Amino acid sequence: MKQNPDHSDTLSALRRIEGQVCGVQRMVDEKKYCIDILNQIAAVKGALSTVEKRILERHFQHCVKDAMKSESETATSEKIAEIMDLINKRI
Amino acid sequence: MKQNPDHSDTLSALRRIEGQVCGVQRMVDEKKYCIDILNQIAAVKGALSTVEKRILERHFQHCVKDAMKSESETATSEKIAEIMDLINKRI
Amino acid sequence: MKQNPDHSDTLSALRRIEGQVCGVQRMVDEKKYCIDILNQIAAVKGALSTVEKRILERHFQHCVKDAMKSESETATSEKIAEIMDLINKRI
Amino acid sequence: MKQNPDHSDTLSALRRIEGQVCGVQRMVDEKKYCIDILNQIAAVKGALSTVEKRILERHFQHCVKDAMKSESETATSEKIAEIMDLINKRI
Repeated sequence: MKQNPDHSDTLSALRRIEGQVCGVQRMVDEKKYCIDILNQIAAVKGALSTVEKRILERHFQHCVKDAMKSESETATSEKIAEIMDLINKRI
Repeated sequence: MKQNPDHSDTLSALRRIEGQVCGVQRMVDEKKYCIDILNQIAAVKGALSTVEKRILERHFQHCVKDAMKSESETATSEKIAEIMDLINKRI
Repeated sequence: MKQNPDHSDTLSALRRIEGQVCGVQRMVDEKKYCIDILNQIAAVKGALSTVEKRILERHFQHCVKDAMKSESETATSEKIAEIMDLINKRI
Repeated sequence: MKQNPDHSDTLSALRRIEGQVCGVQRMVDEKKYCIDILNQIAAVKGALSTVEKRILERHFQHCVKDAMKSESETATSEKIAEIMDLINKRI
């Protein structure tokens, strides 16, 4: 069976995101102004979106392409259903 | 000067989010399937949105209300500009 | 009773949006490429968001401000609940 | 050259959306309450998203699949770039 693609180049971003979440906790603790906390949370979500895009692009280049080339209708349908499910939650 | 509202009831959620981000790092490390990682990232963003809403609601109930009651046109305009800026980034 | 604010300065944008929706129908009719149709739909949604923001800003400057100045806790709570409901659907 | 897929099953939805946009114009004309107008605009955007998803799903099932099966690296890369561009604007 084929291995899943390697996304380890997102690890440093994910560690930075972990640090940002700690930063939000600190802002809450120090009773910072609501809008500043909200902007920091928006920054965390933006950073997560960047990671999402990188993983999704690699998913297309590996898993989706392999399934579509496999000529297996089931594999192709399954990949499309997974992606549509992902997109449906976001559009 | 008035103090900023207390959002410390979001701290346990923020600690859980920190743990979820670590979980995503683990999934990347263990080469889990792309779609599963993406769904976990979506869960983190959803949890952050819940925190955002709680902070925003309190911001309305305290900061915005105070500014609007203050009869100061500058304070009111400033609060509206801040909120519109926040919303503009999200709509 | 106070009148609702006037949003008639959004009418020309709304008429343009109506035209854009007709344009999308034409693209579908003429079997244009999927991605081009999708980009046009995204443009319509973007134009609707611009109208939304203008109406929302005026809503803050009139309805929300009036309710908050009224010192009526019920009126204020109602406005905040309405806005949070609106934001909850969008964040 | 292959024809683009047929999306004419979205036409009735697109005509309904055109009618909804006219409805929003009428609400603005009749000075309806801001929140009611905003909810109606949100409904239009939701209806557009439903059309988007249907077109996007067909795009995967036809254009993306064909490109990926074609074994042409350029065609595949182009399709992935198009989809990522579409998703980048939305995530």
